[in-house]
Amino acid sequence: MATLKVPSPVPSPVEDAERLRKACQGWGTDEKTVISILAHRDATQRLQIMNTYEELYKENLIKRLESELSGDFEKAVYRWMFNPVDREAFLAKYALSKGLDFRVLIEISCIGSTSHLLAVKQAYQACYKRSIEEDVASKTSGDLRKLLVGLVSTYRYDGHEVDTGLAVTEAKLLHDVISKKDFNNEEVLRILTTRSKPQLRAIFNRYKDEYGAAITKNLTSDDGDEFASALRIAMRCIASSHNYFEKLLRTAMDKPGTDEDTLTRVIVTRADTDLKDIKEIYEKRANKSLEQAISKETSGHYKNFLLALLGN
Amino acid sequence: MATLKVPSPVPSPVEDAERLRKACQGWGTDEKTVISILAHRDATQRLQIMNTYEELYKENLIKRLESELSGDFEKAVYRWMFNPVDREAFLAKYALSKGLDFRVLIEISCIGSTSHLLAVKQAYQACYKRSIEEDVASKTSGDLRKLLVGLVSTYRYDGHEVDTGLAVTEAKLLHDVISKKDFNNEEVLRILTTRSKPQLRAIFNRYKDEYGAAITKNLTSDDGDEFASALRIAMRCIASSHNYFEKLLRTAMDKPGTDEDTLTRVIVTRADTDLKDIKEIYEKRANKSLEQAISKETSGHYKNFLLALLGN
Repeated sequence: MATLKVPSPVPSPVEDAERLRKACQGWGTDEKTVISILAHRDATQRLQIMNTYEELYKENLIKRLESELSGDFEKAVYRWMFNPVDREAFLAKYALSKGLDFRVLIEISCIGSTSHLLAVKQAYQACYKRSIEEDVASKTSGDLRKLLVGLVSTYRYDGHEVDTGLAVTEAKLLHDVISKKDFNNEEVLRILTTRSKPQLRAIFNRYKDEYGAAITKNLTSDDGDEFASALRIAMRCIASSHNYFEKLLRTAMDKPGTDEDTLTRVIVTRADTDLKDIKEIYEKRANKSLEQAISKETSGHYKNFLLALLGN
Repeated sequence: MATLKVPSPVPSPVEDAERLRKACQGWGTDEKTVISILAHRDATQRLQIMNTYEELYKENLIKRLESELSGDFEKAVYRWMFNPVDREAFLAKYALSKGLDFRVLIEISCIGSTSHLLAVKQAYQACYKRSIEEDVASKTSGDLRKLLVGLVSTYRYDGHEVDTGLAVTEAKLLHDVISKKDFNNEEVLRILTTRSKPQLRAIFNRYKDEYGAAITKNLTSDDGDEFASALRIAMRCIASSHNYFEKLLRTAMDKPGTDEDTLTRVIVTRADTDLKDIKEIYEKRANKSLEQAISKETSGHYKNFLLALLGN
């Protein structure tokens, strides 16, 4: 479930646009008003506000906000203003441009539905005049390229049918190669990049039942190699995106120096889908509420914006 | 241009269905009538006839035709009755089930537009409850798998923009590895499976201008290896599908014992799109008309059906 809270009745787009305009005018910006409006409108409502604002003031709202806000707060508002599909296309490009944050590419390709990934790829092409496949391939090499290009390319079967016999065979096959630490075996790549998600979950469950540990537990290498790590992330995203995101939040806030990029990404991308589920798991595992953790690790308007997306 | 000729005015679907019903009733089938109708209706008209036939006679027309016709003629009519997207999904499954005819998979993934390939993949999933990616991956291994899965998976950029500088760099890169016969180099795979088709054509043109021979000419190996052959086919399909199909027709009919599967596939899949262009190239290169060649190499109703699709 989402954490996003939209007031009822919701003000009209004209009212919202007028209040945002006022908040951005004169000396200083009224960030409180910006947050009170934007953090409480869904994607359709935000789009209506942007269109109305443009019509009324002949000015792009996102550009205006970029010039008014700053730091992590600006970044978070910027990401939030996109619709989910365009946002993921932007996040993919961003992950490819600043070094290579392959976690983001794996999240995009392994968490949503087949049709959602297709929509993100179409948005990526419309925006950047290139395919995500060619950009991922250009920025990577070797086994990591094979895995990442395979994950972003594939058009997985989206049905719910599971072939139990096949799950048994392929769980054994994965166990055989993983126990030899032969992670980049071509069969591992084949299974992970082509099987449907329900089929992969059946394989992972079978693996755990038969061999006594989650497949990801066996995917550790002594030299912290990037490929094994990418493989593990892909499997965790497919097995349970809630658990994956919860762990990501904990890691982002537990380490000295919060990882704001990751924190923002999880809150902003999940607030209107399943952040409530992620938050519940977080609270069980971290022994504190997600709000408490965010309040401690962040500050100012950035903190207030994230807490507002959490429904506060 | 197409070779398909539809009469004007075209009879109503009811008239056609009634005549087909009569042609299939009693002792023996009236194949001449079947050909005179079906070989002169486009995909939409064929669908209307099938629906009308089913409504009128509570019987599936394709199934009825399968039971009435036989041999290569039956196969050709069966393939022709599909709409282009469902036909390619069927041809892919067929290519994967009888050994592995990788030419068909390459044609499907390299000739149509990005959105056409997507439609074929969706039809494949709807029909077979699996993705084409997983079936291709299961039936292949090693470098051939990497190439074929890459080709069927990728969602290429469909715009017309070409990056000339990049074409120069990547033509050189391809030349460097191909001149060492390092065909399965990962850069060859990257370029071929991720770049847009206009970009690939620019690379091939640059290659020819700079190195004096078509890239495919340099892709020959002494041991007739499958991978080099698949690579060559993919490049030829992307460079010019007309030239590719023309050569396919010549090879199918030149060898002792005509390759009817291939002959049928080319005629049936191209009759309502560009068979006229293919036919013109054929006539220049083979020094005879395509009709003459087909008349010589085939016989009976099969021959008459192919000739009818050629507009006779």
